[in-house]
Amino acid sequence: MQHVLDKAQSAKKAAVVLSCIGANEKNAALQSMADALRENAGIMIKANAKDIDEGKKNGMSKALLDRLALNPQRIEGMAKGLEKVAALDDPVGEVIHTALRPNGLSIGAKRVPLGVVGIIYEARPNVTSDAAGLCLKAGNAVLLRGGSNAIHSNTAIVDVLRKAAAKAGLPEDAIVLIDDTSREAAAYMMGLNGVVDVLVPRGGAGLIQSVVKNATVPVIETGVGNCHVYIDESADLEMGVEIIHNAKTSRPSVCNAAETLLVHEDVARAFLPMMQRRLDEVELRGCEKTCAIIDATPAADEDYYTEYLDYILAVKVVGGLDEAIDHISHYGSKHSEAIVTGSYNNAEAFLARIDAAAVYVNASTRFTDGEEFGMGAEIGISTQKLHARGPMGLKELTTIKYIIRGSGQVR
Amino acid sequence: MQHVLDKAQSAKKAAVVLSCIGANEKNAALQSMADALRENAGIMIKANAKDIDEGKKNGMSKALLDRLALNPQRIEGMAKGLEKVAALDDPVGEVIHTALRPNGLSIGAKRVPLGVVGIIYEARPNVTSDAAGLCLKAGNAVLLRGGSNAIHSNTAIVDVLRKAAAKAGLPEDAIVLIDDTSREAAAYMMGLNGVVDVLVPRGGAGLIQSVVKNATVPVIETGVGNCHVYIDESADLEMGVEIIHNAKTSRPSVCNAAETLLVHEDVARAFLPMMQRRLDEVELRGCEKTCAIIDATPAADEDYYTEYLDYILAVKVVGGLDEAIDHISHYGSKHSEAIVTGSYNNAEAFLARIDAAAVYVNASTRFTDGEEFGMGAEIGISTQKLHARGPMGLKELTTIKYIIRGSGQVR
Repeated sequence: MQHVLDKAQSAKKAAVVLSCIGANEKNAALQSMADALRENAGIMIKANAKDIDEGKKNGMSKALLDRLALNPQRIEGMAKGLEKVAALDDPVGEVIHTALRPNGLSIGAKRVPLGVVGIIYEARPNVTSDAAGLCLKAGNAVLLRGGSNAIHSNTAIVDVLRKAAAKAGLPEDAIVLIDDTSREAAAYMMGLNGVVDVLVPRGGAGLIQSVVKNATVPVIETGVGNCHVYIDESADLEMGVEIIHNAKTSRPSVCNAAETLLVHEDVARAFLPMMQRRLDEVELRGCEKTCAIIDATPAADEDYYTEYLDYILAVKVVGGLDEAIDHISHYGSKHSEAIVTGSYNNAEAFLARIDAAAVYVNASTRFTDGEEFGMGAEIGISTQKLHARGPMGLKELTTIKYIIRGSGQVR
Repeated sequence: MQHVLDKAQSAKKAAVVLSCIGANEKNAALQSMADALRENAGIMIKANAKDIDEGKKNGMSKALLDRLALNPQRIEGMAKGLEKVAALDDPVGEVIHTALRPNGLSIGAKRVPLGVVGIIYEARPNVTSDAAGLCLKAGNAVLLRGGSNAIHSNTAIVDVLRKAAAKAGLPEDAIVLIDDTSREAAAYMMGLNGVVDVLVPRGGAGLIQSVVKNATVPVIETGVGNCHVYIDESADLEMGVEIIHNAKTSRPSVCNAAETLLVHEDVARAFLPMMQRRLDEVELRGCEKTCAIIDATPAADEDYYTEYLDYILAVKVVGGLDEAIDHISHYGSKHSEAIVTGSYNNAEAFLARIDAAAVYVNASTRFTDGEEFGMGAEIGISTQKLHARGPMGLKELTTIKYIIRGSGQVR
C-alpha cells in the first residue's frame, strides 16, 4: 500500500503549507477552481459517460445512475458551490479566548486547520468538489477516496481542481485522490494515524458503519437519520399536518426527513384522517391503534428502526409525552426530532429530555442543514457527540491550539 | 459479556437522569462523596493493602507500588479534589450561541452532557474518584475500568462514592465500576457504540494505543508527551537554562516534561556547558556536535522518539529555526513545544508553524495543565485534534445540541 501512503503523505506536506495561507489566497484558488470546472465541463462529462456506461453494464439502479450522472447544470452547481465557500468567513486564525494568568502568562486558544481530512464516499461525484472546497477554505488538505463506480469522473474532477489550485499558487497536493478503489486501499487509509487527522465518511449506513468499525483514525460519524415528529395532545392539528407533510415528503431521500409519526391517543382520531388525506402519496405503516382509525399496513417492530428514505411513514399512537420520548430514545438515531404542541411544559420537557443533534418545537425536521442554520455550506451532519454535532460547517473542520506567550516563567 | 453490558446500560439509564439535574444537587453529591471518602478512609486503605500485597508478590516495581498506594494524605487529596470540582462552574445548560433565522426560527446551541464516559486506566486508584467527580459535575455517568492490580482499591472507592451519591439523591449508577479486569471485558467495552458515548484512556503509551486501535466507540487520545525546548540564537541564555531545568526536572514523570533540548549552533558553545552545570542530575544524550562541546552519551535516532519520563534528556544542535521546526514535526507527539528567543519574527514563526496542543514562547512546557490554564481540574491532556486539544476540563466533557423553537415553519 505504498502508493496510498505516498498520496497521504503528499497531502500532509501540502497541509503544512495550507495552514499558513491567508483567506485572500484561498479564495482566489476557490474562484480559479470554479472557473476551471466551467471551462472543462466537457472533459468531465466525457469521463462521467464512461462511469455511466459501466454502471449500466453492471446493472446499476436508476436512482444510483441518476446520482452518478454529471451534466452542465450539475457542473455549474459545483462551480457555484465553490464560489459560495469562497464568500464565507475564514474560520482559521481566530483566537477564541485568551487569559492572562496570575503568573503573567498570556494563554490564547487559536483556531487552526485540522490538517489532512480524509473523505470516504460513494457514487456522487459532486462530493469531490464540495469536500475539496470546504476543506481547502478551512486550511486543510483533502484526501479523497470515492467509489469505484465514479472513478473516471472523480479522476477528471480532481485533475481539473488540482491544476486550478496550482495555477492560483497553492500546492496541488491540497487535493489528492486515492485512485485505488479496492477495499484494501480504503482499509489502509483508515489506519493512517499520524498522517490523516480525521475521516468523514459520506454515504449510506453500510459505508458509515464500516468506517466507524474499522478506522483507527478518528472518525466523524454522519448521516443516518431516523427522525420523528410527535403530535402532542395540545397540538394545532393543521400545523401538525403541514409539518409532517413537509418532513416526510419535501425530500424523502435525505437524512433529515421524518420516518416515524407519533400521535397522542387523545387526538389520534381527529388527526390521523387529516394526515392521511394530506399525505396521500405516502404508504403508511401503523400500529394496531392506527390501523383501527385509518387504512394502513400493520407495522412490524422493524419498521420503527428503519430509515426508509422513501415515501413510507411508520405511525404509532402513544399514551403521551413520556411514551413518545421513550420511543424516540429507543428507536431514534439522535439526528432530528420534533414535537408539535401548544403546551409550554411539554415543549420544554421535549427540548430537555430528547438526546439528539437537533430538537424542534413546532417546526419541520427538514431544517437540520448547514445553510438553514446559517453556517453556509456543510460537509455533513454529525450524529455523534464528539467534536461536532449536527451540521458541520467550516468551523467544524478546524481545531484549536494553545498559544502561550511568556517572559521566562517556570513552574 | 452480559455482565459488562448490564453495567454499561445501568450507567446509560443514570446518565438520562443526571442530564436534567441542576448544579446545586450535583455539588451536594460531590460534597457528600468527599465526606464519605474521609469517613471511610480506613476501609479503602485496608482494601488497598490487599492490592499492595499482591503487587509485591507479583514483583511490581517500586514506582508502580508507590502509584498504587493509598494513605490518609492521598485520600484527603481525593476528597479535596471532589470539593474543588464542586466549586467549579457547571458548564451544562449554557446556550453558546443563538440565531434568529429570517424565517423566524430561533436556533440555539445548548451545552449538554456527553452521556456515558468510559475511563480505561491503570494502577492509580485516585483516578477513580477524580474521574467520577469530573464526569458527574458535567452531568455524565462514568463507566470505570481500572487495572487488575488496583481492583480491591477501586471496588472499595466506588462502593463509597456510589453510596454517597445515592444518599444525596443521585442515581448510584452515575458511578459504575466494571470489576471484570480481563482483556476481553475491556475489548467488549470498547465496542459498546450507542451505550458508551466516549472513551478516555488514562495511562501509559501501550494502554492508550491499544484503546485507539481497538475501540469503535469514539476515543479521546491523551497523554504521550515527547516535548521539546528550542534555544534560539537570540535567546536569553540564563532564561533558557532555567526553562529547560524546570521543563526537565520539576517532575520528569509527567507528560508535559521536556524530553529533547534543541540548541542553535551559534549559541551551543556558550549554552551547553551552562545547561550541563544546572542539570547536573540529568543524563544527557547528545548528537555529535553536542558531544564535541560537553560530556554526553552519544544519542541514537531512537532517543529523539523517546518519552523518557526520567532524568534523561536528548540534546541536538540545529542550524536554526527551520531545522528545529522540522525536527519537532518529525519526532514530536504534538503535545507541548517551547522556543526561547529574543526574536519577534522567530517567536511568531514558531507559534504559527508548530503543530501541537500547546506552543510556548519563553516559558516552560510544564504549564500545560488544566489548573495552570485556569480550567480548574482536568481529566487528561488531549493530543488529538478532534473535540478537545490540550487540557480537558469540564467543558470538554460536554457536547451541544441544537434547540430550535418555531411556530409552524416548514421548508
